[in-house]
Amino acid sequence: MFKELALKRESCRGYDGRPVPHELLQEILETACLSPSACNSQPWRLLAVEGETAEKLRPMVQAAGLNRFADKVSTFVVICETKASLKEGVSGDRQRFAQMDVGMVTMMLTLAAADQGVSTCILGCFRENKIKELLNIPEDVVVRLVVAMGYAEKEGVRKKVRKPYSETIGYQSW
Amino acid sequence: MFKELALKRESCRGYDGRPVPHELLQEILETACLSPSACNSQPWRLLAVEGETAEKLRPMVQAAGLNRFADKVSTFVVICETKASLKEGVSGDRQRFAQMDVGMVTMMLTLAAADQGVSTCILGCFRENKIKELLNIPEDVVVRLVVAMGYAEKEGVRKKVRKPYSETIGYQSW
Repeated sequence: MFKELALKRESCRGYDGRPVPHELLQEILETACLSPSACNSQPWRLLAVEGETAEKLRPMVQAAGLNRFADKVSTFVVICETKASLKEGVSGDRQRFAQMDVGMVTMMLTLAAADQGVSTCILGCFRENKIKELLNIPEDVVVRLVVAMGYAEKEGVRKKVRKPYSETIGYQSW
Repeated sequence: MFKELALKRESCRGYDGRPVPHELLQEILETACLSPSACNSQPWRLLAVEGETAEKLRPMVQAAGLNRFADKVSTFVVICETKASLKEGVSGDRQRFAQMDVGMVTMMLTLAAADQGVSTCILGCFRENKIKELLNIPEDVVVRLVVAMGYAEKEGVRKKVRKPYSETIGYQSW
């Protein structure tokens, strides 16, 4: 049941320091890339960061005392948004679809990880310019998110806190 | 294995006309709402549309000859983005996170559906103003996507076409 996996996936803020084995990481990244996207343009590049580079990246997600738990994270995936190439006639701000596509591929990444017993935390606050410099990310690429990955120090998951369904789900009319 | 579900989920453009049973729809929507979001602000409202209202909505996703297959879609979910309420100190364009959050909840919705044998297609082109009028959606809410839902007329899934992994996955450096 997918719902079990959805309940298992949570934002983990307590890691035991172990990195995600490289082969498993590649498998998780490949599964994430099965994500859909507008016009199948796949406007993302997932940059996995391990070892010494992960040590250098760590403080870049810890500005202003944020994300102290990242001290024990040894694997990061930097989610980059690339230029979406959409079909003629797709209306609106075309790059706006890319942001949703980036959300989708990140969701897939965290689910693929949870399925393999790998915990994640999606980080939205980081020093983008420093990360771009560290990883040689081109000027025109946007770093949208950084996903911390590893193994939870404690077993079990928290109870999910969500708005009442009546607020987030409706039928036929607002 | 999550990968099996990820391979099973695809954008279906051939439906048999049957609606998704209401109880199952609710279950799928509830699972989708387990999606994470920045500061857990859940900036979405999922409006499910069935029956006569679905018939009225149908032409609104078929402007300019688009999405003819929707003629045989009897269930839609309109994905609305609501104002994100984020913690102090979360930097950047705060509503930008909401777009990624909307991508995530939509991804969850399509996976929860696929898990139940329900096919989906995420639609990005539609007459937003007409949909807002039909469903009494408030002025300040944005309709980001519409998800067509139903049962595929054919069994089996297509082979997924994706960029080579070397383009979408990298290590340590761009």
